[in-house]
Amino acid sequence: MAEENFIDGLNKLTYGLFLVSSSDGETKSALVVNTAFQVTDQPAEIAISVNKNSFTRSLILKSGKFAVFPLEEQTPFVFIGRFGFRTGKTFNKFENIQNSVGKNGSPLILEHTLASIEATVCQTVDLPTHTLFIGQVTHTQVLNPDGKPLTYAYYQNVLKGKTPPGATHP
Amino acid sequence: MAEENFIDGLNKLTYGLFLVSSSDGETKSALVVNTAFQVTDQPAEIAISVNKNSFTRSLILKSGKFAVFPLEEQTPFVFIGRFGFRTGKTFNKFENIQNSVGKNGSPLILEHTLASIEATVCQTVDLPTHTLFIGQVTHTQVLNPDGKPLTYAYYQNVLKGKTPPGATHP
Repeated sequence: MAEENFIDGLNKLTYGLFLVSSSDGETKSALVVNTAFQVTDQPAEIAISVNKNSFTRSLILKSGKFAVFPLEEQTPFVFIGRFGFRTGKTFNKFENIQNSVGKNGSPLILEHTLASIEATVCQTVDLPTHTLFIGQVTHTQVLNPDGKPLTYAYYQNVLKGKTPPGATHP
Repeated sequence: MAEENFIDGLNKLTYGLFLVSSSDGETKSALVVNTAFQVTDQPAEIAISVNKNSFTRSLILKSGKFAVFPLEEQTPFVFIGRFGFRTGKTFNKFENIQNSVGKNGSPLILEHTLASIEATVCQTVDLPTHTLFIGQVTHTQVLNPDGKPLTYAYYQNVLKGKTPPGATHP
């Protein structure tokens, strides 16, 4: 039996669209994910699911730190493509993009982002194609208080965006 | 220093609103969660974060099975309240609610739901206030193909809903 992907049921779930960045002190990178969510409240912890082929994942494994950025609804497609459809191994995703350095050393991306959420990894869960990082939130900053978050439904239905390679679902 | 909840940054994340059900063969229950998301693709796995005080959590721990139901945008507030603000320990949440039994034994809730996603627990991650269950998806069924999913933002901003006790964030 071919492995089912159960897409009809699973695509009724609601997701946002986020950038996740990390740095090992020398190299920095960032990628697009659709799974970033608070999993517990006291202390605040956030979980992200990152494809095992991603270069950013290797930086998170080295540094134990990452930052998450909810994207704004008006994010241009080319901006998403820059972070979601290219690899940070051979391409400098930050060239000509406004950025700085967060309190935990992760790159801060200052365009088309609503907030930064910095975290320190406290648990790493191995999944078949992805790694689930659970991080304790150490600092947040609102970058655009009035911006509306980009949802995955808006990206697919209005922007007609394709699923980035390595997404958690097709 | 008082523990920060970082709410200004964290409330820029996008969530849906879901029911999660389970049964130990004798007793059945369900609750409302805002964290349910596919975390890996081959095989399809879904993660849910469930408060440790929840009765449904004890049924998932016993049975190793659960089902997730994305709610439709038009879900009446009283329906959400029934599942989100009362405990299944002493209250039969299913009375006068259309329901049946899923392939994995979890209750199927057939009102105001867009799909059912049944899963078998393959990893359990202990978090401070919640348990993160990661389940392999075993069956899905679309219950309302044209319905629009209820988002947490819509629940808060349009329905003016309160945060259910035991949510992952305030």
